[in-house]
Amino acid sequence: MISLRLIDQNNWEECINLKLKQEQQGFIASNLYSIAESKFSPQLEIKSIYCEEKLIGFAMYGIDSDDQNYWIYRFMIDERFQGHGYGKNAMKLIIEDIGSRDDCTDVIWLGYQPENEQSRRLYASVGFEEVGMAPWGEMLAKYSF
Amino acid sequence: MISLRLIDQNNWEECINLKLKQEQQGFIASNLYSIAESKFSPQLEIKSIYCEEKLIGFAMYGIDSDDQNYWIYRFMIDERFQGHGYGKNAMKLIIEDIGSRDDCTDVIWLGYQPENEQSRRLYASVGFEEVGMAPWGEMLAKYSF
Repeated sequence: MISLRLIDQNNWEECINLKLKQEQQGFIASNLYSIAESKFSPQLEIKSIYCEEKLIGFAMYGIDSDDQNYWIYRFMIDERFQGHGYGKNAMKLIIEDIGSRDDCTDVIWLGYQPENEQSRRLYASVGFEEVGMAPWGEMLAKYSF
Repeated sequence: MISLRLIDQNNWEECINLKLKQEQQGFIASNLYSIAESKFSPQLEIKSIYCEEKLIGFAMYGIDSDDQNYWIYRFMIDERFQGHGYGKNAMKLIIEDIGSRDDCTDVIWLGYQPENEQSRRLYASVGFEEVGMAPWGEMLAKYSF
């Protein structure tokens, strides 16, 4: 059973110890960086991902001030817990969470390195459609409610 | 002219790029870690230290929930700007800032690695008195208003 939970004084240090596989580490910023970043952007929501009572992942999302749409900026499952479908279930919960909000937008955006095949498959499996390359070198994908 | 300034969206990334000398790096947590930590402890104040318009250092202080006294938890001057007396001036501003607060306490505490001779001298020069070793291996020093 996967759940999204708040990050607080009790679990933030555990969150910064979550790790990606070596070859995935270049794909996204560290959780420590994301947590610090969220301090200065109150619209950025940070969430921990649990499988039962075990912390397995981290996500950051929120409304982008440039286009006023929801973006999922960071999403990771610790290397020890990959390959069990947890990521797909966690993404569904994030979509559900955004969809249930008063400020929900028609679409959710995200971007990933074009060579990040694993993420591409995961995002496609929950309904994201590739839209094209962003000027900053990421593949953009869009989920429509 | 040294000043303490807020850390916000515009200068936090510059703060995390400040660096200690190699041999000082084991003495305190990284600025990135401290910024993330402060997100979950609203009583922790983080401040950037400027010399004119140049960012030169970082500090974190606040009331400790255990003893209700002010503690200076982190204090660093970037390696490029050490040795000019900026640290001493910045510490004086921190003491002044704490002293001017409504919730100011009679004393300010801080701790440092006993082998950190440079910090010992700096803190002594602004009036901190060594009190003895903490159970966690740091030398404790106390400033009395």
